[in-house]
Amino acid sequence: MNVLPPRIILVKPSHPGNIGAVARAMKTMGLKDLYLVSPKKFPHEEALAVSAHASDILENAIVVENIIDALKEITFVFATSANVRGCELNTFSPKDACDVIKTQAQHRYAILFGPENHGLSNEDLLYAHALIQIPTAPDYNSLNLAFAVQIITYEFHQMCLETSATVPEMEDFYSHWETVLKSLQFLDEANPRQLMPKLKRLFNRAHLEQAEVNILRGFLRAVDKSRKIEE
Amino acid sequence: MNVLPPRIILVKPSHPGNIGAVARAMKTMGLKDLYLVSPKKFPHEEALAVSAHASDILENAIVVENIIDALKEITFVFATSANVRGCELNTFSPKDACDVIKTQAQHRYAILFGPENHGLSNEDLLYAHALIQIPTAPDYNSLNLAFAVQIITYEFHQMCLETSATVPEMEDFYSHWETVLKSLQFLDEANPRQLMPKLKRLFNRAHLEQAEVNILRGFLRAVDKSRKIEE
Repeated sequence: MNVLPPRIILVKPSHPGNIGAVARAMKTMGLKDLYLVSPKKFPHEEALAVSAHASDILENAIVVENIIDALKEITFVFATSANVRGCELNTFSPKDACDVIKTQAQHRYAILFGPENHGLSNEDLLYAHALIQIPTAPDYNSLNLAFAVQIITYEFHQMCLETSATVPEMEDFYSHWETVLKSLQFLDEANPRQLMPKLKRLFNRAHLEQAEVNILRGFLRAVDKSRKIEE
Repeated sequence: MNVLPPRIILVKPSHPGNIGAVARAMKTMGLKDLYLVSPKKFPHEEALAVSAHASDILENAIVVENIIDALKEITFVFATSANVRGCELNTFSPKDACDVIKTQAQHRYAILFGPENHGLSNEDLLYAHALIQIPTAPDYNSLNLAFAVQIITYEFHQMCLETSATVPEMEDFYSHWETVLKSLQFLDEANPRQLMPKLKRLFNRAHLEQAEVNILRGFLRAVDKSRKIEE
């Protein structure tokens, strides 16, 4: 997997300790690109202390005044939010957001995190193309800023470790399914319902390795061949 | 999904702030059962301050002197470790460990976390049945204690949200595959290779929902039926 890691943008973080913890969280998962929009206290010794050996991330962090200045080169912005406040944006789990980053690699991604006390404002959300929401317990969704960064960067790192089949390989695989399903009249062209989308979602979720695609395509060939022998 | 959440056991935590952060991390993901083995400072106002509104987890935390006293009712112990030091235990990613917890529900699980500075000792590891290792960047694996708890409890919570097919339903599903694969002579009984285990791994990873199992079984029936019509 070779996907450019997303930029992490902290909007008006209050506590320097959180900035340090974000740097450490990012570095454990192989991310480096950190922007700070109007941090209350930065640079600050507490950020440095908490960052442990991730001080390089802090040293290279870029401080800007406004969100727009943190979005250079960026073409797709995910905003993070604990509460979706009547907002019309598509909402993704961390894992599904990483799937977007992986499969829509034409974009350069950034992930926006709001201030600790009240999150991103409605105005901030106008920069976003989609939302990431971390599923939490229904009675307590109070994730600390740095922990939210840790979960999302962890999912990104997990995705980077996969030796998945490529998207074109998966497209060929799906075409193969479609052909076989039609020949079995299991897929009715006049009324396809949601059969192929459902299969795609299922197999995409499994993140098939190339070897697994080969097994399943072998099986589809066997289905086809057995029908031809018997015809 | 109805699986008993694992017990979280912190062995000799040094910093009360970390205990508070663990409580908060647990509560965001719906876990409550916290044991502390010989904490350096507990109870402590810093733990309380950092826990935000998760003070109930701290109040109900049970403090014991030795690991063995934290393992009442427990039949399966996962140890967490950044470095596997020539240890013979099976090692799981957080996600795979949660799969174990889900699919082997006869056990009552605990997850052991070592002290901040040097992790679990070799002696501590003797209580463990398996290891959980969180994949990190190769050059920096210094995950803070509470962040490690957050990642693992997040994976557990993700798993709880799934409306998966049950294990018996999956067994029926695999039998169906096996029958069809044999009838197609794609599965050679004399030389089954690793075909069924590979398929099981793949579909288990996708955590099929019941509706998806139904689609795939419909497809398998169509394969079967088309062969019978043509015979």
